[in-house]
Amino acid sequence: MGIFITFEGPEGSGKSTIIQGVNDYLLKHHETLVTREPGGIPLSESIRDLLLEETYHMDGHTEALLFAASRRVHLVEKILPALNHGKIVLCDRFIDSSLAYQGYARGLGFDPIFQINKFAIDTHMPDLTIYLKLDPKIGLLRKKDNDVEHNRLDNEEIDFHERVVMGYNKLSEQYPERIKTIDANQDIDAVLHDTIDAITQFIKSRGE
Amino acid sequence: MGIFITFEGPEGSGKSTIIQGVNDYLLKHHETLVTREPGGIPLSESIRDLLLEETYHMDGHTEALLFAASRRVHLVEKILPALNHGKIVLCDRFIDSSLAYQGYARGLGFDPIFQINKFAIDTHMPDLTIYLKLDPKIGLLRKKDNDVEHNRLDNEEIDFHERVVMGYNKLSEQYPERIKTIDANQDIDAVLHDTIDAITQFIKSRGE
Repeated sequence: MGIFITFEGPEGSGKSTIIQGVNDYLLKHHETLVTREPGGIPLSESIRDLLLEETYHMDGHTEALLFAASRRVHLVEKILPALNHGKIVLCDRFIDSSLAYQGYARGLGFDPIFQINKFAIDTHMPDLTIYLKLDPKIGLLRKKDNDVEHNRLDNEEIDFHERVVMGYNKLSEQYPERIKTIDANQDIDAVLHDTIDAITQFIKSRGE
Repeated sequence: MGIFITFEGPEGSGKSTIIQGVNDYLLKHHETLVTREPGGIPLSESIRDLLLEETYHMDGHTEALLFAASRRVHLVEKILPALNHGKIVLCDRFIDSSLAYQGYARGLGFDPIFQINKFAIDTHMPDLTIYLKLDPKIGLLRKKDNDVEHNRLDNEEIDFHERVVMGYNKLSEQYPERIKTIDANQDIDAVLHDTIDAITQFIKSRGE
């Protein structure tokens, strides 16, 4: 069996860059799969199309159920086959995104969102989760820099961003064994260094 | 607020005929809505299309999450507005179908299926559920009569049909207040008589 690693964090935390760097490093000695939902599977892509279709009116509960369904398909069709081939799977966002964004920031509650996601994931929780923890103010500055057309952020956006980070912080306290917190306020090389450190320690602890 | 009534039972139990008869009766004194999922709402119809698309590979968990999402949309867009207008809603199948078919007959378990459906339904459980209870052998004979091309039923089909009925029986024992059991082995006039009796008693007990 392979190793299932997920990457979590708010916008601006540098997830994509870090995943690419980790993958370059791991590829020297391991087979890997880099993926994110919906993952190119026709059914999960179709579910994602429904989620993005602007003419549909959709409340938070419907959205959460569709995200969970898409997660299930991606897990069964792409992640589990790779793990069964002994690969290290690097997945950009997974259950903790739903918990932080929908459960905490949108106020649907951790417990109900956890229950429907637990149904989707079954026994297949991530072996390790890298949480790129970012000061909300730094995240917002990075976002502002990248978003030249909307360089004034409204209060609601700032509040939401802070609640997402608070949600992640609570999760990292609740699951300290699974979730390794990395200081993402540092420059990107230091973040990558710390992340690779956490992952290689985990791989060693599994004796692989 | 209106009254939310659901109709449940295995294939061959005569649900559609009974709902039509109940509606004809109630219309003399009440405004009603007769409905069933996906109910003509574009989003729930699109979800149902995914469930019916034969080229998609889909396991029981994904199916259950998509059914729950479709149920949520149908509830929010069609059932709740009718209830808010004081109508009596007659809904052909609802949460108990998922519990009997997926939870019990397909073996996913009552509890997990209940949890994701509870998330979909929130506080809006049916006020009254009419369970058309049918001897599995009679249901199979009716099914056989209607299905001239496949007049030999295989063992798996018989087993499944019996498990659905066992699932419904357990539910009716578990929720005797909400679920009223009607003997659907009788001829259809008697079944309709008993059903209208149960519904008028319920309406009286609500003082309406």
